[in-house]
Amino acid sequence: MPAVRSRALAHRRAPYAAGVRTSPTVTLLSGGGGGAKLAQGLARVVDDLTVVVNTGDDAVLYGLSVSPDLDTVMYTLAGLVDPRAGWGIDGDTHATLEAMARLGEDTWFSLGDRDLATHILRTARLHAGAPLSEVTAQLCAALGVRARLLPMTDDRVATQVDVADGRLGFQEYFVGRRHRDEVLGVVLDGIELARPAPGVLAALTEADMVVIGPSNPFVSIGPILAVPGVREALAGTQAHRAAVSPIVGGQALKGPAAAMLAALGHEVSAVGVARLYAGLLDVLVIDEQDRLLAPAVEALGMSVVVTQTVLGGPEDRERLARELLDAAS
Amino acid sequence: MPAVRSRALAHRRAPYAAGVRTSPTVTLLSGGGGGAKLAQGLARVVDDLTVVVNTGDDAVLYGLSVSPDLDTVMYTLAGLVDPRAGWGIDGDTHATLEAMARLGEDTWFSLGDRDLATHILRTARLHAGAPLSEVTAQLCAALGVRARLLPMTDDRVATQVDVADGRLGFQEYFVGRRHRDEVLGVVLDGIELARPAPGVLAALTEADMVVIGPSNPFVSIGPILAVPGVREALAGTQAHRAAVSPIVGGQALKGPAAAMLAALGHEVSAVGVARLYAGLLDVLVIDEQDRLLAPAVEALGMSVVVTQTVLGGPEDRERLARELLDAAS
Repeated sequence: MPAVRSRALAHRRAPYAAGVRTSPTVTLLSGGGGGAKLAQGLARVVDDLTVVVNTGDDAVLYGLSVSPDLDTVMYTLAGLVDPRAGWGIDGDTHATLEAMARLGEDTWFSLGDRDLATHILRTARLHAGAPLSEVTAQLCAALGVRARLLPMTDDRVATQVDVADGRLGFQEYFVGRRHRDEVLGVVLDGIELARPAPGVLAALTEADMVVIGPSNPFVSIGPILAVPGVREALAGTQAHRAAVSPIVGGQALKGPAAAMLAALGHEVSAVGVARLYAGLLDVLVIDEQDRLLAPAVEALGMSVVVTQTVLGGPEDRERLARELLDAAS
Repeated sequence: MPAVRSRALAHRRAPYAAGVRTSPTVTLLSGGGGGAKLAQGLARVVDDLTVVVNTGDDAVLYGLSVSPDLDTVMYTLAGLVDPRAGWGIDGDTHATLEAMARLGEDTWFSLGDRDLATHILRTARLHAGAPLSEVTAQLCAALGVRARLLPMTDDRVATQVDVADGRLGFQEYFVGRRHRDEVLGVVLDGIELARPAPGVLAALTEADMVVIGPSNPFVSIGPILAVPGVREALAGTQAHRAAVSPIVGGQALKGPAAAMLAALGHEVSAVGVARLYAGLLDVLVIDEQDRLLAPAVEALGMSVVVTQTVLGGPEDRERLARELLDAAS
């Protein structure tokens, strides 16, 4: 059995331990929904937060460059996100999309009017030659987001999903077909040539703590880890490393994570998640419902924190963020 | 004094004269506002109407390909245009533009949410390689526009305006600075390499009647005539050729046409307009206010029709269209 690593933040970061910093430097790896909620919780308790976000599900829709996970995290941190949907802008209208439908366009991918402003500006700036990381920083600054959002890469990576009748673009699988197809495999087109966006590797190696959010291990976290250099940086960092299991009671809170685990031959549980991240984690946070799985997770070489991981509103998200910090110190 | 040409439609088009056609084939050259109103009038009385539209004031705004004159004609013919502004879509909202402003963009050029659908789809299809003429036909078909709208060219032509402090893009001059600068010259960047869009030359040579709309002679009609081959086709066509003066009582009904005539050394009157179109017209339609100018216009080698040219609603536009057809037959 591998030794359980335990690296308390206070023991290695003198400035933090000495009180010069009021909170540790934290880097979160995130997809959309669950990761965005945790990002919001962390942003309430951490001064220096970097969120490295999956861009494998970015797509060109109606000619516009759409970055769903970046936008979900950005809108959530800006307090703009539609709380019911978990994505998009609260109270947004759809005049443009309706007009596009009247013009004969198949408007299968819903984009609100205010949300479109983000995509229009992003597209224009990318076409003008700005990298996605720079455009993201501009958008976040304009929206008053203090956390640093980094796309995993400025290069094009397209997550594709193999299903019974062929290979689908991620949004076609996820939105177009409502992730009903059994997933036979995940392909990350372009990943070999992708370079981590500026700041990504440093955010992993120089943080006090790295958190893998409760996002889909295959299509949210998987692409981030697959960017050449990222997995190695996470494996070798001195940061305390924690993940929050996206599987609770054998089910995904949202989306196809559970179905993907099953279809791709993994145990549909926090233990299955722990195996996917083995060697990359010091701690896995699992839900109280999964308390009995703790020994099996610990056997994989990581500590376990058992808590309430099904997140409610901002206070609940902050509570989980504090528990993560407590586990590391 | 040149001979006044008078070519009655009924004398040269046997099918029309014999009643096989219920109305003549008409081609209108048009910019935005006044031309669009006349297009609507013609569309109510002519079965086979082609409108060749200026694209010199097309611009890329917020990364989107905007064709103001094409859209004004299209929206007017579709019954969608904002009747007060004379452009844009009636009742349109501005959620996207307001959100773009919140994202830090200088939103100096107003685009409504429904209008944006047009620009987004146009941009996507142009990027995919479709020519503007094809995209325009698709948009018109979707909006139920029966008249055939043709951009003057599928190639890029950018109207630029020389003013005291330099050369401005047309929209910067027209919208950004509200056409307040004195115009020292008009430049049509790219015009030498522009080819008439498919159907443009045939629409001039094969029509029973060609009408130059009451649009700005320099920045609306001028670019169309400057596309290589267009002026020659109009000079040589057997069609009856009429124009409606955009100058009434020494003033432009809207926009900078009068100021441009003066600044560029032309008489600010229907006579000045007639001189610009000399050799291209059989008839100039002038307003009742300018009745006394008729002899001076006739001296330039064209007939004159005096009528009410300040257009009100659709019935008034139809009335002018009928008078144009009457003048040709």
